[in-house]
Amino acid sequence: MLKRYLLAPGPTPVPPEVLLSMAKPLIHHRSPDFVPVLDSAKKGLKWLYQTTNDVLILCSTGTGGMVGAVNNFFNRGDRVLVVNGGKFGERWSKICQAYGLEVDEIVVEWGYAVKPEVIEEKLRKDQSIKGVFIQACETSTGVYHDIETIGKIVKNYENALFIVDAISALVAHDLKTDEWGIDIMVGGSQKGLMLPPGLAFVSVSEKAWNRNETSKMPRFYFNFKRERENLAKNQTNFTSPVSLIIGLNEALKMLQKEGLENIFKRHALLAYATREAVKEIGLSLYSKESPSNSVTAVESPPGIDGQLIYKTLRERYSVTAAGGQDKAKGKIFRLAHLGYADTFDVITGIAALEMTLKSLGVPVTFGKGVAKAQELLL
Amino acid sequence: MLKRYLLAPGPTPVPPEVLLSMAKPLIHHRSPDFVPVLDSAKKGLKWLYQTTNDVLILCSTGTGGMVGAVNNFFNRGDRVLVVNGGKFGERWSKICQAYGLEVDEIVVEWGYAVKPEVIEEKLRKDQSIKGVFIQACETSTGVYHDIETIGKIVKNYENALFIVDAISALVAHDLKTDEWGIDIMVGGSQKGLMLPPGLAFVSVSEKAWNRNETSKMPRFYFNFKRERENLAKNQTNFTSPVSLIIGLNEALKMLQKEGLENIFKRHALLAYATREAVKEIGLSLYSKESPSNSVTAVESPPGIDGQLIYKTLRERYSVTAAGGQDKAKGKIFRLAHLGYADTFDVITGIAALEMTLKSLGVPVTFGKGVAKAQELLL
Repeated sequence: MLKRYLLAPGPTPVPPEVLLSMAKPLIHHRSPDFVPVLDSAKKGLKWLYQTTNDVLILCSTGTGGMVGAVNNFFNRGDRVLVVNGGKFGERWSKICQAYGLEVDEIVVEWGYAVKPEVIEEKLRKDQSIKGVFIQACETSTGVYHDIETIGKIVKNYENALFIVDAISALVAHDLKTDEWGIDIMVGGSQKGLMLPPGLAFVSVSEKAWNRNETSKMPRFYFNFKRERENLAKNQTNFTSPVSLIIGLNEALKMLQKEGLENIFKRHALLAYATREAVKEIGLSLYSKESPSNSVTAVESPPGIDGQLIYKTLRERYSVTAAGGQDKAKGKIFRLAHLGYADTFDVITGIAALEMTLKSLGVPVTFGKGVAKAQELLL
Repeated sequence: MLKRYLLAPGPTPVPPEVLLSMAKPLIHHRSPDFVPVLDSAKKGLKWLYQTTNDVLILCSTGTGGMVGAVNNFFNRGDRVLVVNGGKFGERWSKICQAYGLEVDEIVVEWGYAVKPEVIEEKLRKDQSIKGVFIQACETSTGVYHDIETIGKIVKNYENALFIVDAISALVAHDLKTDEWGIDIMVGGSQKGLMLPPGLAFVSVSEKAWNRNETSKMPRFYFNFKRERENLAKNQTNFTSPVSLIIGLNEALKMLQKEGLENIFKRHALLAYATREAVKEIGLSLYSKESPSNSVTAVESPPGIDGQLIYKTLRERYSVTAAGGQDKAKGKIFRLAHLGYADTFDVITGIAALEMTLKSLGVPVTFGKGVAKAQELLL
């Protein structure tokens, strides 16, 4: 009997209550049975996003939401800023370029957060900039960018929309959509929201809706205006992914029971305990500043391939964490504490890590990291 | 206790075995756990599609697959033929127009099938036509277009791709993708494949892949070339909708056990019995020719609103069928026999229909339609 532990930054574990809710017989998406489900999920998302605007629900992975954020609000040739501090920052650039935007990339060293003043300077110098694209949590490096400060900067520039990929940060981080001036924020189901992959969520501010009127790029599947009109009637533009939305509703109810403040505290504590335990083992964090509450990126010890740690965790202990991506591949591994995660997920991850390192010949004292986590999670 | 019966042309009922397979704990999409699942689903889809080409698996509704079929193979200004004989034919036109194609619409009266010779004549007269778009089953009218004959016509025109929306026909109709020269065929999960909504499937011929090289429209989420490359490695381009693909694999195994020939015979028989039973009750079919095996569209009796039949079925008997769409709204109702459907789904539908009509004051003899269905389904 080898029990499976999923500690990857998405897909994350889905609570059995949610899994079983999605195993109910199908209902029809244009029937009155479905109206209260979608209505309730809609309200729950507004609560989670801390916004008074409806949050669109799309049938796609998070990347579909990112694409929609580009091709519903811009035109070919528009100048935009992209913060690229990892694999997902790079994805913003690739999407913007695929749609013919003129991208000014702020390249941030992997493991570091962008300096808000760099963004401010760029915006001040070039008032033609139409948007600032960023990740809240850059999943590939485990770094959290200072969305609050940047949001308050971008707000002052009438021409610029602030577009945040919060796919891996949503639920783990307090993101005040309206208060901080986030114009478009993209989420995904398979992260903090404790669901299987298949849904993307997008909030849209009034400033962004006004911009939508001027955007003439071809679109059909990700047509946000149509989605908005349908959502107002508790429908989606095309066939609703009913099972996933039933699950969404269940997951949101669980989160609402916990309360926003508690959710963010829990994630902050799990992340803190993970970081301190990892350091106690003698390892270094890959995120040199502003580590996220979603996922902890850890440097592999000298001479040890990070992918080998990831593989040993999985093959020997049935713990699925994550390795490094692109230029971080082999150098790091990542432990998530996102969504349906508690004290003993951290303990399991740290204990499995100690055992993995020992079996790879790294000198570790069993229980040292675990004890640190216990102390902090008490 | 009011048991629910889902007799709509999508979403269709999902077998409990499939629902429970999707309720298993999540696995990671880039882990070795997932490779055999995707590999097996991939093989199953090739079998179902009767093609030697890989069938792409997209995380979207069927409409996402339709959009991809347009923006991966065409360029702005390309001339295309669209067969518009209902709401979904109209959707092809709208998608093509949204992407700037020049659409020549063959408008077919609702309830009728396109005449293949009309397509042949158009192609002969204008060899610049780059594609022919059609539905296999036009869900809104219950009509099946003669895909075999049209495929064999389009095959002779080097310039033209043959693109079939088989979303509601797949599984219910024998569609020989390769043999009939179907270049692109789009399917969806929530119809004959007995799954919740959330997946689209697209087969692509070599002729279409060659065309893909010349198509320069912006694309990122529905990038078929990237999906093809990933699928060859048993991956998807972005996060795989793992739970739905696990369900897909289960559904395909059930279908494979039944065998292609039996599946098509079953659907043909259920559809035939439904039609004859409806006529026995004294009603007329809305599909004046070539009725599909997926869904039966029935004219409501004089003086009775079709939507009222649909509503009474649902509210009084908990049978969810479908009403009419757009110009057929109020004039018809539709009973599906698609996917996870057998003899007693037809009997239930017909019995509920008899009871509904009686309660609406239509003179019916109880059991007359049911007896006809029994006789044919024996």
